[in-house]
Amino acid sequence: MDIELLTVLDWIGAAAFAISGALAAMERRFDLFGILIMAMVTAIGGGTLRDVLVGITPVLWMSNLAYLYFIGGISILAIAFRNELYRYKGSLELFDAIGLGAFTILGVEIGIQNGLHPLISVILGTMTGTFGGVIRDILRLKIPVIFHKEIYATASLSGGLLYLLLNSMDVQSDVIHISTTAYIIAIRFLAIRYQFSLPTFRLK
Amino acid sequence: MDIELLTVLDWIGAAAFAISGALAAMERRFDLFGILIMAMVTAIGGGTLRDVLVGITPVLWMSNLAYLYFIGGISILAIAFRNELYRYKGSLELFDAIGLGAFTILGVEIGIQNGLHPLISVILGTMTGTFGGVIRDILRLKIPVIFHKEIYATASLSGGLLYLLLNSMDVQSDVIHISTTAYIIAIRFLAIRYQFSLPTFRLK
Amino acid sequence: MDIELLTVLDWIGAAAFAISGALAAMERRFDLFGILIMAMVTAIGGGTLRDVLVGITPVLWMSNLAYLYFIGGISILAIAFRNELYRYKGSLELFDAIGLGAFTILGVEIGIQNGLHPLISVILGTMTGTFGGVIRDILRLKIPVIFHKEIYATASLSGGLLYLLLNSMDVQSDVIHISTTAYIIAIRFLAIRYQFSLPTFRLK
Repeated sequence: MDIELLTVLDWIGAAAFAISGALAAMERRFDLFGILIMAMVTAIGGGTLRDVLVGITPVLWMSNLAYLYFIGGISILAIAFRNELYRYKGSLELFDAIGLGAFTILGVEIGIQNGLHPLISVILGTMTGTFGGVIRDILRLKIPVIFHKEIYATASLSGGLLYLLLNSMDVQSDVIHISTTAYIIAIRFLAIRYQFSLPTFRLK
Repeated sequence: MDIELLTVLDWIGAAAFAISGALAAMERRFDLFGILIMAMVTAIGGGTLRDVLVGITPVLWMSNLAYLYFIGGISILAIAFRNELYRYKGSLELFDAIGLGAFTILGVEIGIQNGLHPLISVILGTMTGTFGGVIRDILRLKIPVIFHKEIYATASLSGGLLYLLLNSMDVQSDVIHISTTAYIIAIRFLAIRYQFSLPTFRLK
Repeated sequence: MDIELLTVLDWIGAAAFAISGALAAMERRFDLFGILIMAMVTAIGGGTLRDVLVGITPVLWMSNLAYLYFIGGISILAIAFRNELYRYKGSLELFDAIGLGAFTILGVEIGIQNGLHPLISVILGTMTGTFGGVIRDILRLKIPVIFHKEIYATASLSGGLLYLLLNSMDVQSDVIHISTTAYIIAIRFLAIRYQFSLPTFRLK
C-alpha cells in the first residue's frame, strides 16, 4: 500500500507539471510538438535531476513506458481543454503547486531511502520539486517561478522539514506523505492568494 | 565495419554541431574562446546528456582526446571560413540539421545497446539530437530552435521511429543508420525550405 | 596535509561563489530565499557537474552537511554586509574570480585522481570552475560571464595547463595547488583591470 501511494504521488506530480508545461508552451504559441516537449520536460525534469544526483541510472522514467504515455495523454488533454484551463487565470500556478508538493515529498523519500542525511534529503526534495519548473521557465526565457515574489521554495523546504518532524514522531508513512504534500500545496495557494512574500534587500 | 560507421556518424554529428555553435557564437560577437566553448558545448552536449541519463560514466567524450581535438580543429576552420559559411544564410540551420540527424540515430542505437525499451530509446535519441542545440541557444538567450516554427523535434522523433521499423524488418544495420540519418536531415531541410510547420493553438 | 589543502580550496571556492551568487540575486531584487538558492546553486553547480560527468554519485556535497551549512552561513553574511560589498563596484567579479581559480584546480585534481587523461582533466577543471557562474547568470537571464569581453575561461584553461606543467616538473603538490589557483585569480583580476580581451571576428 505504501509503495502504491508514492506511485500515485509521482503520477499526480507528473500530470500537474505536464499541464503547467503545456500551458506555459501555449502562452508562447509553441507548436503541437513544442507543447508536448515542454510538458514532458517539466514533468520529468525534477525526477531526472534527482536520479542523476543520487546515482540512479538509467534514470527511473526510462524504465517506465506507461509513465511517459500517461504524461503524453495528460498533455493532449491539456491542449484540448486549454480554454477551460485558461478561464481560471491562475491555472499554471495551481498545477505547478500540485507538482511542487508531490515531487518535493517524493524527493525527500528517495533521498532517505538511498541513505542520505535527512536534511540533505530535504534539499534533494526541494530540488526535485522545483527543477521541472525552472527548466520550463528557462526554456521560454522567463525568470524561474522559484525567484518570483510569492513564497515558493520556502513552501517546498518547510514541507520537507515537516516530513522529518512527522517521521521522527512515528506518524504512519502514508499519513506523512499525504499531509506534507497537502501542506506544500496549501502554503503555495495561500501565498499566491494573499501575496505572502519574503523580504528583499535594498542596496544603497 | 558497423562500429566504424557509428563512429563516423558520431564525428560528423560533432563536426556539424561544432560549426553551428561557432556560427551562433560569432553572430553574438563572442570572442575567440567564447566561440570555441560554444562549439564544444554544442558538439558534446547531446552525448553528455545521453551518457549521464543512461549511466555511462565517465561520459564517453572523456576517454577520447582525439574527438576533442577534432572538434577544436573544426571550430577553427569554421572561424577561418566564417564569411564563406555566412554567405549561405541558412548555414547554421543546415549544420544543425546534420548534427540532429546523426546524433538522434546514435542516441537510439546507444539506448537499445543499453537494454532500454525501443520507444524509450527513440526518446533518448531525440534528447541526444536536440540537447546540444538547446544549450547553444539558451547560452545566447534565444528561444531554442526546438521550439521554432518549422518542424524540428518531429523530424528527429519520426527518424527514430523509422529506425525501429527498419530494424523490425531486419534491414542491415549500416543501411538503417545511414538512411534514417539522411531521412531526418532531409525532413528538416524540406521543413525549412517549404516552411512545414505543426499547428499552434489559439487561446480564447 | 595535502588533502586538507584541497579541502580548504574547496571551501574557499564555495564561499566565493556563494557570495557572487548572493550579490547577483540581490542585484535582481530576489527575495531572501531566492538569494540563498542563487548562492547555493552557484557554489555547488561546478562540483555537481564535475561529479556527475565523472560518475561520482551521490555527488560529493550530498555527504557533507557541514559544507552546506558553511555556504548558508556565508550567504547570510553576504546579505548582512551587502552594502560594504557593493561599495567596491567589482565585488561580484572579484569573488567569481576566486571561485573560478579554486574550483578549476580542484576539478583538474579530481580528474587526474579518477584516471582521466591530463588534458581531459584540464577541460574538466575549466568546466568545474565556470559552470556555477554560468548557471547563476542563466537563472537571471544574463549572457554568462564566460562569454564576456575580458578573458575568463582562458584564465581557467591556462591555469590548468600550468598545473600540468608544474606537475611534470615534480613540484610539490601543495605548491602547485596554491600557485595555480593564485595564477588564475591574478590573470582574471588583471584582465578586468586592464580590459585584456581576445579577438572577436567580424562577419562580412
